Amino acid sequence: MEKPSFLQRLFESVSRRPGGVPRAAIRDARRAVSLCHALLSERGEVSGAHLARDALAAYQALEGESLSVFFDLLAEEFSPDPQMVGKLAEAYRVNPSQANLVGLQQAVEAPRGKLFQRLNMAPGGTGQLVEMRRRVMREVKLKPQWAGIEADLARLLASWFNRGFLTLQRIDWHTSALVLEKLIQYEAVHQIKGWDDLRRRLAADRRCYAFFHPRLPDEPVIFIEVALTRGMSAHVQPLIDPSSPVCDPADANCAIFYSITNCQEGLRGVSFGNLLIKQVAEDLGREFPRLKTFATLSPIPGFRAWLAKAPKLVQSETQQAELEALVTDLDKPDWREDDAMRERMQPLLLRLCAHYLLHAKHREEPLDSVARFHLGNGARLERLNWLGDTSENGMKHSAGMMVNYVYRLEELERNHEAFAHDHRVIASRRLETLARESLLSQPPAPDQKPLEHA
Amino acid sequence: MEKPSFLQRLFESVSRRPGGVPRAAIRDARRAVSLCHALLSERGEVSGAHLARDALAAYQALEGESLSVFFDLLAEEFSPDPQMVGKLAEAYRVNPSQANLVGLQQAVEAPRGKLFQRLNMAPGGTGQLVEMRRRVMREVKLKPQWAGIEADLARLLASWFNRGFLTLQRIDWHTSALVLEKLIQYEAVHQIKGWDDLRRRLAADRRCYAFFHPRLPDEPVIFIEVALTRGMSAHVQPLIDPSSPVCDPADANCAIFYSITNCQEGLRGVSFGNLLIKQVAEDLGREFPRLKTFATLSPIPGFRAWLAKAPKLVQSETQQAELEALVTDLDKPDWREDDAMRERMQPLLLRLCAHYLLHAKHREEPLDSVARFHLGNGARLERLNWLGDTSENGMKHSAGMMVNYVYRLEELERNHEAFAHDHRVIASRRLETLARESLLSQPPAPDQKPLEHA
Amino acid sequence: MEKPSFLQRLFESVSRRPGGVPRAAIRDARRAVSLCHALLSERGEVSGAHLARDALAAYQALEGESLSVFFDLLAEEFSPDPQMVGKLAEAYRVNPSQANLVGLQQAVEAPRGKLFQRLNMAPGGTGQLVEMRRRVMREVKLKPQWAGIEADLARLLASWFNRGFLTLQRIDWHTSALVLEKLIQYEAVHQIKGWDDLRRRLAADRRCYAFFHPRLPDEPVIFIEVALTRGMSAHVQPLIDPSSPVCDPADANCAIFYSITNCQEGLRGVSFGNLLIKQVAEDLGREFPRLKTFATLSPIPGFRAWLAKAPKLVQSETQQAELEALVTDLDKPDWREDDAMRERMQPLLLRLCAHYLLHAKHREEPLDSVARFHLGNGARLERLNWLGDTSENGMKHSAGMMVNYVYRLEELERNHEAFAHDHRVIASRRLETLARESLLSQPPAPDQKPLEHA
Amino acid sequence: MEKPSFLQRLFESVSRRPGGVPRAAIRDARRAVSLCHALLSERGEVSGAHLARDALAAYQALEGESLSVFFDLLAEEFSPDPQMVGKLAEAYRVNPSQANLVGLQQAVEAPRGKLFQRLNMAPGGTGQLVEMRRRVMREVKLKPQWAGIEADLARLLASWFNRGFLTLQRIDWHTSALVLEKLIQYEAVHQIKGWDDLRRRLAADRRCYAFFHPRLPDEPVIFIEVALTRGMSAHVQPLIDPSSPVCDPADANCAIFYSITNCQEGLRGVSFGNLLIKQVAEDLGREFPRLKTFATLSPIPGFRAWLAKAPKLVQSETQQAELEALVTDLDKPDWREDDAMRERMQPLLLRLCAHYLLHAKHREEPLDSVARFHLGNGARLERLNWLGDTSENGMKHSAGMMVNYVYRLEELERNHEAFAHDHRVIASRRLETLARESLLSQPPAPDQKPLEHA
Repeated sequence: MEKPSFLQRLFESVSRRPGGVPRAAIRDARRAVSLCHALLSERGEVSGAHLARDALAAYQALEGESLSVFFDLLAEEFSPDPQMVGKLAEAYRVNPSQANLVGLQQAVEAPRGKLFQRLNMAPGGTGQLVEMRRRVMREVKLKPQWAGIEADLARLLASWFNRGFLTLQRIDWHTSALVLEKLIQYEAVHQIKGWDDLRRRLAADRRCYAFFHPRLPDEPVIFIEVALTRGMSAHVQPLIDPSSPVCDPADANCAIFYSITNCQEGLRGVSFGNLLIKQVAEDLGREFPRLKTFATLSPIPGFRAWLAKAPKLVQSETQQAELEALVTDLDKPDWREDDAMRERMQPLLLRLCAHYLLHAKHREEPLDSVARFHLGNGARLERLNWLGDTSENGMKHSAGMMVNYVYRLEELERNHEAFAHDHRVIASRRLETLARESLLSQPPAPDQKPLEHA
Repeated sequence: MEKPSFLQRLFESVSRRPGGVPRAAIRDARRAVSLCHALLSERGEVSGAHLARDALAAYQALEGESLSVFFDLLAEEFSPDPQMVGKLAEAYRVNPSQANLVGLQQAVEAPRGKLFQRLNMAPGGTGQLVEMRRRVMREVKLKPQWAGIEADLARLLASWFNRGFLTLQRIDWHTSALVLEKLIQYEAVHQIKGWDDLRRRLAADRRCYAFFHPRLPDEPVIFIEVALTRGMSAHVQPLIDPSSPVCDPADANCAIFYSITNCQEGLRGVSFGNLLIKQVAEDLGREFPRLKTFATLSPIPGFRAWLAKAPKLVQSETQQAELEALVTDLDKPDWREDDAMRERMQPLLLRLCAHYLLHAKHREEPLDSVARFHLGNGARLERLNWLGDTSENGMKHSAGMMVNYVYRLEELERNHEAFAHDHRVIASRRLETLARESLLSQPPAPDQKPLEHA
Repeated sequence: MEKPSFLQRLFESVSRRPGGVPRAAIRDARRAVSLCHALLSERGEVSGAHLARDALAAYQALEGESLSVFFDLLAEEFSPDPQMVGKLAEAYRVNPSQANLVGLQQAVEAPRGKLFQRLNMAPGGTGQLVEMRRRVMREVKLKPQWAGIEADLARLLASWFNRGFLTLQRIDWHTSALVLEKLIQYEAVHQIKGWDDLRRRLAADRRCYAFFHPRLPDEPVIFIEVALTRGMSAHVQPLIDPSSPVCDPADANCAIFYSITNCQEGLRGVSFGNLLIKQVAEDLGREFPRLKTFATLSPIPGFRAWLAKAPKLVQSETQQAELEALVTDLDKPDWREDDAMRERMQPLLLRLCAHYLLHAKHREEPLDSVARFHLGNGARLERLNWLGDTSENGMKHSAGMMVNYVYRLEELERNHEAFAHDHRVIASRRLETLARESLLSQPPAPDQKPLEHA
Repeated sequence: MEKPSFLQRLFESVSRRPGGVPRAAIRDARRAVSLCHALLSERGEVSGAHLARDALAAYQALEGESLSVFFDLLAEEFSPDPQMVGKLAEAYRVNPSQANLVGLQQAVEAPRGKLFQRLNMAPGGTGQLVEMRRRVMREVKLKPQWAGIEADLARLLASWFNRGFLTLQRIDWHTSALVLEKLIQYEAVHQIKGWDDLRRRLAADRRCYAFFHPRLPDEPVIFIEVALTRGMSAHVQPLIDPSSPVCDPADANCAIFYSITNCQEGLRGVSFGNLLIKQVAEDLGREFPRLKTFATLSPIPGFRAWLAKAPKLVQSETQQAELEALVTDLDKPDWREDDAMRERMQPLLLRLCAHYLLHAKHREEPLDSVARFHLGNGARLERLNWLGDTSENGMKHSAGMMVNYVYRLEELERNHEAFAHDHRVIASRRLETLARESLLSQPPAPDQKPLEHA
């Protein structure tokens, strides 16, 4: 079953180039692959979890070059047989019957798919396969020969992490330290600075929910942080201030989703955020009937990068100059302290940002990744918040602004379809007006259609 | 995406033949299919579990002809596009690159695969998909156009019911009535005649274990019943007698697996029995270090059917006559009460049965399905038990005999490989001797090789 | 600490009377008592659960006469020291200070109280102490020397089974068989005839709740059975018919408490029924906001016994004769089948029963034990139901009638106080009218006050 | 039931003394007491948990003077009736029958006992009653009139917190943050300095166990910290160093109990430490069969206080001078850095400390509180460790030394009895020798008996 030609080539390459793959790396990878072959064989069928454990352990011991060799071998020796695929594809072409389809489906399935299924029997197997995909993805651009591995893992994990198998769990101070420290570690939007910071985020007027997979009980797949507030929050710093007073959640009329974090890079593309927000909104609505508004408080991560290129988008030189001056001013460290400067910049920036959110596109989709996500979920762009996030990060990417996306459960499907079919961005009047008043939209354009940008 | 031509043909066929598919059935099936299309669409992406619930409910309301129409539509409208498959198969043939492989893999995947994934979001979805496969399998021989549905479900369920996701649970009197009544309902080997009968099977000197899937917490996937005994049991009736005295399990030196039942017909071919026996043997060995023997007490379900045809397998007329007389005697209702008869028949039957177990084959595998299972797991044929099962069922299929297969954990892999590669049946000396003395092996054969039988 | 004089007397009595306590019984009891002394000693303090286990096991092995001797010794050797009690009582009499009170409280506490506390460390200790009280109570009338044991256990168990430590659990088909079979065994009001019968009582339109103690997780302390119905049930047979159709509980407007059972005789006098009914009514009201009426469907267990004596309560000979005829007719096995007879008896019996429920007293409390319980809880007598329970039991004690007591949460306290302070029976107009029309109330009585009966 | 005379006196006292109890405090206390009376009344019987909740809330709102008034009223109005106690005490004196005993027992029981039982029905009731005892204990020396309250609570809590009702739970990183932060807060022996510190104490080679009461699931009653080590630890700093490497617990041969903390001051005198150590030792012994030694690493908290008075215990002036010099040296901040000084002091201090542990007594018990506890449990004094605890605290109380007490399960009972009956301190040869060589034991003593010290 092993293909000596490949190994031969490998060894030749070792001897050929100085600085090639060290023999020890090849030996370790080879050993792991042998165990994988055994696991796929007759013996694997009867040995159960023991062999799976050994194979997984051998794989886990790999790193750097030995890991690369392992993936190379996984691509070489556990791919479908091209002959067989060719033959059955031809058969299907001649007669596209169900039987021929089933045959072809089997032929294109890589043996490594079955290998992954068997590795999953080992304790910790599921987590290791998620991690394996992360490793492959990280380098697949440079190693196109690994694309098949990535695709097989992606398909398998999408199937296993089906929403139907995930459970929604509330996370609070009753949760284990094991899970809580993962939140501290994973939080991607507004850094959690330790246990006291975390504690405030789990107090009575906050909520945190996560999806868990039954096989990974201590590993959140994705989590969301919510503040229960009076009025729609415009500023994030008060929400995450560890010393802010705790309010009675029964008084709240808004649920503000201020952070959502995908924890597992190895599950990229297997999307849950959409479902998580909706289920949390439904659950909170039942628990607190006085909640009227469900909205995010979100960054606008692509705004400043786009703004830097905006001068090129206008034709009028005056406008160009004005935009360039704005970009320059934004780079000054203390513009926020300078009252005159701040007051001059505020209306300009708000309008430009509104324009960016409504009209800056990549192909037909919003250029801003966060906008793309929430609008794709059927939310509406509601309000821009000046100095909503004054952290270093917030200033650097979003020029300190934040935006609220509102989730109205009854209009999500309609908004989503308008967005998906007609690429329409659903936004409040206020935001549409702001965008219309921006430097980019205003004077010149005889052409009505907004510009498209890469 | 809908193919009016199919519906047209359907309606035509209705009008053509009297007694065709009633319009109501078509309408109901069509409604369910429309919801399935919606669930697969953009709208389905954002609607989450609600639409999945509606689609599942519409499907669950189908039966008889409407269900048939639904499956027909599922085959027609949710299969891969043959054009696309053909194109990508050709591309792969020309250049078998990873990229082309990934493309072809995607092309052959039926849209109904994604549909099933989304249906799984609805409460009860997983169970309904298992049930769907059961329904399709039941009729797929008559409806070859459903083969693709069956294959898609089989692949999906094999992935979801991976051993790594199943949990082993002990079942005893602390278990919920909901699960316990399923045991009564499902037990396939030795019928459980009610709660008192069940109670005895869960007493201190008995063990029952099942695999459960996290999404089906009240539905055992497979379960096994074990008796902890002194000495290897030869007779099943004492084991299942509700009034038998309960012994101290700490005194036992044998664990007798006397019943193993696959509960979900819709998971046929997704095999767990092998792993269940082994894990239970390991767990019991740890709990009761004095256990020395792990063995089954199993029926020989194919013996009498084979015996009826055995006369044709011998050439000597004397032997033929003797065999025919034996078959005739076995049909007499009271041979067990007739001492002379019983004593005459016992040695003949034991030897013939040993021969049957060791040498009767279908292709290269044992003809007896139970032997095939346990030998395939690496167990060894240990002992034949005269009048081991005197129930009506036991007399009818196994001529009242039972057999012990012994599981020695340290030799399972070796036995399995000998069986899988060389088709060798691992048996005790005693059984080999018995088989050698049987009417069929003994006198004539100058040819050493045992006969093969269909 | 041991009092040889007592043993001496014991042995003397053995030698004196033939047929006295056998030596083996004395020896076994003595052995258990020795272990109890050890458990109370210094050694017991440090030995922890081991000694408690041994002592409990030695006690559990006792029965019949050895048990009697054990209790005698428990009374003799583990009672407070009368000298000390006398001395501290006198001190308190002279100076009723807090310090003297505390001293006296300690002096009157029997050493066996501490013994019971230590026995509780053994596995199963709590259950055994409940059982111990049951055994003592059964014979305490004949053995007044055991009264102290009974009182000590009663006080201890009342403290341990404080409502604050009990948890309310719903019992349904998800409950373990271990608990469910206890319901079958304990149900005291309307016998459960097996698992199918039980299953109906746990279906969607029924509810069953029990209080559990954390130390006795498989032993309900008390349980209640509820039917969710449309309209207030008048007849119990349809409620407990295993083949009755299951209704949608969301349609119900009444919760009928048709059975409440105290499971532990050893907890007699430690009352929970009152709290159980109220908590269940509150919980159901939250779960099903459409429920308007919470009522029992109860037997009238003392009616026929009272009726048999009723002739003596009237002075008019006509009435006396009429009552005697009625009692005689009720004894006829087939009066229910005789239309004329039944129609004649119905109004008479309903009125007499109303009179019984409203006016028959023992001291100042209702004579009927069930009425006493529900009226004491603050419920009101609402409606009498002709042929509400036609079981043998129902006919024998309640002449086939049943009564509804209605629980209106908002009037329970008021009713209870009227009942507790003024002995007023709160009843519906209808029942008051019926009672006023009864043979016993009607014609003669110049004296308004209803008769009192023992 | 209320005693206006008391209130009258109270109000009088208010008017009499300037600076008396403010009226608001009296009013609040009075309100809480009224609710307590209601809870004890007929109404309380039927109102269930609602009234209990109100009464508890009213009590919880009290503080400072209003709380004091509340306890005064609790002593005044909820104590037994002295008349009745006197009468029944006399009856018992005349005839010490079981019936009279039971009567007297009931008479001496304070109504507040029943009040506490009813308060326990309120959510959080158990915790509040533990807290109530803490508050009463804190001041009972100054308020002797509260002694009865304290005694009633002590008796009740001892009954409720019976070992049989507590569960032993392992505490590790899977435990909720809610419980973990209590450890940080409560740890009394070696302060936990935050989450990282705590994490190290819960790593693979550490164990932490606590007793929990079912009604206080988030409140440890007592907890113990254990290190699994090779060899008996002599120094505590390495054990609690957050950066120390984690070892494989399977290699350990010693379990070192290095900290044990009673968490609930309100449960003082209800002792669990003894049982906790033993159960943990048994459980660890089963989990790790290679563990041979179970020992503490304990402070000697009374050593330096005793040493300061030691000069007065000797008669020889030389010795007196030597001891005084030693005490003076110990107060020098840097003696540990001075090699000569340290080497001179070490043998002196070790011997004196051995003498202290073996011979310094209060009455007949060891003067050192930690020694008293472990010797009372049946442990033996094994080894003195020079500079075992160099923390500020360790230097200040124990002169930097620590001691190992060894728990040998098989000799605990014997040691305990020798200790309890004959006041014998069980110690190793080495320690006995050291003690014999100490300044205090050595030369002069013509009197053999060791000196006793207060």
